[in-house]
Amino acid sequence: MNPLILDGRKVAQTVKDELKGQIDELQSKGITPKLATVLVGDDEASKTYVQMKANTCHKLCMASERVFLPEETTTEELLDVIQRLNEDPEVHGILLQHPVPSHIDERQAFDAISLDKDVDGVTSHGFGATTFQLGAYPCCTPAAILQVIDYYGLDVEGKHAVVIGRSPILGKPVSMMLLNRNATVTICHSKTENLPEVVKQADIVVAAVGRPKFVKGDWLKEGAIVLDAGYNPGNIGDADYDTCYAKSSAITPVPGGIGPVTISMLLKHTVEAAQKQCKVS
Amino acid sequence: MNPLILDGRKVAQTVKDELKGQIDELQSKGITPKLATVLVGDDEASKTYVQMKANTCHKLCMASERVFLPEETTTEELLDVIQRLNEDPEVHGILLQHPVPSHIDERQAFDAISLDKDVDGVTSHGFGATTFQLGAYPCCTPAAILQVIDYYGLDVEGKHAVVIGRSPILGKPVSMMLLNRNATVTICHSKTENLPEVVKQADIVVAAVGRPKFVKGDWLKEGAIVLDAGYNPGNIGDADYDTCYAKSSAITPVPGGIGPVTISMLLKHTVEAAQKQCKVS
Repeated sequence: MNPLILDGRKVAQTVKDELKGQIDELQSKGITPKLATVLVGDDEASKTYVQMKANTCHKLCMASERVFLPEETTTEELLDVIQRLNEDPEVHGILLQHPVPSHIDERQAFDAISLDKDVDGVTSHGFGATTFQLGAYPCCTPAAILQVIDYYGLDVEGKHAVVIGRSPILGKPVSMMLLNRNATVTICHSKTENLPEVVKQADIVVAAVGRPKFVKGDWLKEGAIVLDAGYNPGNIGDADYDTCYAKSSAITPVPGGIGPVTISMLLKHTVEAAQKQCKVS
Repeated sequence: MNPLILDGRKVAQTVKDELKGQIDELQSKGITPKLATVLVGDDEASKTYVQMKANTCHKLCMASERVFLPEETTTEELLDVIQRLNEDPEVHGILLQHPVPSHIDERQAFDAISLDKDVDGVTSHGFGATTFQLGAYPCCTPAAILQVIDYYGLDVEGKHAVVIGRSPILGKPVSMMLLNRNATVTICHSKTENLPEVVKQADIVVAAVGRPKFVKGDWLKEGAIVLDAGYNPGNIGDADYDTCYAKSSAITPVPGGIGPVTISMLLKHTVEAAQKQCKVS
């Protein structure tokens, strides 16, 4: 039997449709949810991402403020910009586009974002508060993975999820979020011995490793669910789609899987932040 | 072959011996590392724990301040006490004894502790900062587990660690700490299906479930390492010691395993906090 194709574009559209109503209600009270994006340097891919985020804001009648800083910006200067945005009551969410130039202390910059404006879920405090289920905004890609799971009603409780990757914005948070949904969670990475054998145990595989076509179909248990968070050059996922397709019961394509849902999570968090900061719900 | 018995008393003594030199050095500069403990209510077990911690401080010539608050203390009153301790330059570390009475918002109280004085590793920010390896003090029991691993030179990198339990102060942080040591980590809990089969994969088993003699020897792979963080009434661990002893290559007894190392981790963190807060190292 062919697997269920998990269509991220449909999930994203549903999220945006729900957001429209919430944004209308905020605007009827004189509040326009506003996302500030900060881009340091001239990386073309980063410029494109920031532009896409601003465009999606505008399509949903949300406001955006784009801050462009030159390549030679110091950590101190970046911290000053973040502090100004933290203090600006018109700004509800802040996104610092990753990566920043290597001379900047990226972790210090991320952690300077106020917890209540950390709609991209990049602060270490936000990670802890997400893990402990204290209402922080999780990172957007992990949130997108959970959104796809919920949209399609996939069963997580008691299932064995194997997450390949342990980055602060993807592997670690998605592991904690699946754990909080009562999955048994295994976290694998570059030092894992016998990775194919470990993946074989999985009811749910999350590919978050950043290597094209890395996860092979013959690693999978028959009927596993494959959630591919990879986006490698040329729009290629971390899972080898054709061989995984043949073994899985449900699979996210790349493109059109987790990716499109990610931006909608950023906007969802920004709208929630506006509701909370303006005490509206 | 009989397994290696991992002797926590020996590990703890070694830690304390190292601390003595550091405390002497601090005192030669007029600084006495000071731990403040806060106990709310009349729980006898908690009183004993707090007393043990203070006694160990005094044995090492560290200072302690014990704050006893009545059962009827409100969250606001407790937050005021924590705030006073945060601001007291003589206090380097703060421990809020768990559990607090149920009418108190324990999470809010924990999270009110300054990150730089959170020597018991209970804040959500501290959990995130530990996971991201930013120099926060981890929870003391997970730190004790890692200390035992290091003392005995047990191999973690690339090994499969199965952690049974997912509490904020034990299962979750020890999982992240083992992951940061390049173990492949599986986190199990009450909803895990086929727990014995999952444990069978483990090179290292961390029992952190709070159920006496829960982990059975026949769940283990031959030669697994068993690290038992349980302390159930009657000084009984989470692992069924006799059957686990027969299958393991190394095992922590209860009592005398992880337990004795835990308090020494609290004091180690307090001394480090004094060094950092007084800019001495």
